[in-house]
Amino acid sequence: MCDREAVVKSPGSIANLGPGFDVLAVALSGLHDLVHVKASPGTGLVRVYSDVPVLTGSSNNAHAVAVKSLEKFKWLSSCDIEIYVRKGVPVSVGLGSSGATAAGAAFALSLIAGSVDEETVLSLAGEGERFVSGVAHYDNVAASLLGGVVIVDTKYKKAYKIEIPKEIHVGVVIPETGARTEKKTYVARSILPGKIDLETHVQQSSSLAKLVYGLIKGDLRLVGRAISEDEICEPSRSKLIPLYREMKDIALREGAYGFNIAGAGPSVFYIHDDLDEITRIGGVILDFLKSKGVKASLLASRFSNQGVEVVSGG
Amino acid sequence: MCDREAVVKSPGSIANLGPGFDVLAVALSGLHDLVHVKASPGTGLVRVYSDVPVLTGSSNNAHAVAVKSLEKFKWLSSCDIEIYVRKGVPVSVGLGSSGATAAGAAFALSLIAGSVDEETVLSLAGEGERFVSGVAHYDNVAASLLGGVVIVDTKYKKAYKIEIPKEIHVGVVIPETGARTEKKTYVARSILPGKIDLETHVQQSSSLAKLVYGLIKGDLRLVGRAISEDEICEPSRSKLIPLYREMKDIALREGAYGFNIAGAGPSVFYIHDDLDEITRIGGVILDFLKSKGVKASLLASRFSNQGVEVVSGG
Repeated sequence: MCDREAVVKSPGSIANLGPGFDVLAVALSGLHDLVHVKASPGTGLVRVYSDVPVLTGSSNNAHAVAVKSLEKFKWLSSCDIEIYVRKGVPVSVGLGSSGATAAGAAFALSLIAGSVDEETVLSLAGEGERFVSGVAHYDNVAASLLGGVVIVDTKYKKAYKIEIPKEIHVGVVIPETGARTEKKTYVARSILPGKIDLETHVQQSSSLAKLVYGLIKGDLRLVGRAISEDEICEPSRSKLIPLYREMKDIALREGAYGFNIAGAGPSVFYIHDDLDEITRIGGVILDFLKSKGVKASLLASRFSNQGVEVVSGG
Repeated sequence: MCDREAVVKSPGSIANLGPGFDVLAVALSGLHDLVHVKASPGTGLVRVYSDVPVLTGSSNNAHAVAVKSLEKFKWLSSCDIEIYVRKGVPVSVGLGSSGATAAGAAFALSLIAGSVDEETVLSLAGEGERFVSGVAHYDNVAASLLGGVVIVDTKYKKAYKIEIPKEIHVGVVIPETGARTEKKTYVARSILPGKIDLETHVQQSSSLAKLVYGLIKGDLRLVGRAISEDEICEPSRSKLIPLYREMKDIALREGAYGFNIAGAGPSVFYIHDDLDEITRIGGVILDFLKSKGVKASLLASRFSNQGVEVVSGG
């Protein structure tokens, strides 16, 4: 057992998608972490190496996932575990970077342990996320793991995958913020209202149900309208994002089907069925931001049905 | 124009379906109101006749629908309108009785006015519901109108229909309550919490998304689990229903896929893919209620994809 390795690719993701706070997330195309796990005879020592500084240190999520894996798979305790993470998902901008690493590490470790069932991998990856946000969130990790749009079942700690039937292109505008900090998600959560009106709940539920319906049916206009609706996170979180309202107005005016904050932000995203339109609309937004002295970059991607992939080993 | 009549059948329905408060509803099979509308030359007088006393009087919903229809379709103002309602949906037990009448009246009046588009009919029927509950709710009326499971879009006052891909049988246990009152829905709403925790919202959202997913995919076990989950209405409304918890325990123990309150209650419902099981489980519940001195009746039905139907005229 203790002489195995596995390399996996784990995609970035966007959580919430407007009204789906902590419930929905989608995997992105062309944006992934490469996670390489090596097991060698030893005593359960865990070491994590990464090409991005923020990920080193003992409290990072790949480390946490490995520790939990050693507890889960007793037979791994006679191994030492080395994890090499090559980050492809930008860190701390709202694109599920930590979730991608956690999902990749959990999947690779399960491969090595010879026990790759969805539930186990999801739960291990969720434990990794606990180190980042304080709770075992499954939204980003489930999207990275399974691909497609995932519905997180908070009660049964499961996830249901919606295979996206139609090409959905997505533009992500990533503002250049100064400090990228592990506390960002914590801050973005702390500013949310603790209680909401029943009426707000009903409105948000309606948007969420419409979004799930539109995604399964492949009705992109409906998906876009639903994505643009969020009565809970957007009002508070958008205040942390410079020129948010203006960006949203521009995107929708220029024909984007929907626009909202990517995960906890500060990135924002918009969707369209045409890749050229994604690039054009992004250009208009970037020009506007530039005119206001705000630096930002544009990422053109797609909603992807592909989750974690084995590159080699296992 | 003023010498036309139309007869339509409008099905009963179950709203909420557990986590879908004010957002979801489903049409039922074999349970409908017959609404007969006659227009004759006149001055815009409206008269409503019904075989159930609670529906007569000037404030009932069919009357309200007709008044709104006269406002909407100016050319009807040179007509008198007579509406005959033969109730098939039991009144005031949580099966969308008023919604069925409102949908039927709105549809029949639109037929006569020659303008049957979904949006108009839905909005007219919603106005009828306003007289019953104080707000223009669309859940029951949309289900009666369109059939299937409907998602109510609270923002755009629209409804999206989920065609149910698999047979879903439903058992409805209707307790014999003393007074059947038009105020019942009002009371059932007034006891709901005005505010809810963000955490509760997330859990409820998760259940709702799972329910919509399960309904579209035809995964009845999943639908059942989701139907049984409700953190918002069930805790308060179930207190108004004698032996609620016990009934739910029995139903789930006996193999029902899901159980919850029908609309605002006091009826409860459970689902299964097998009609015989519906009858058997219902028998166990009724026996239990009888042993406790509670009188109730059982209705075996199906989720139906059929909405309002024209019987004649138009």
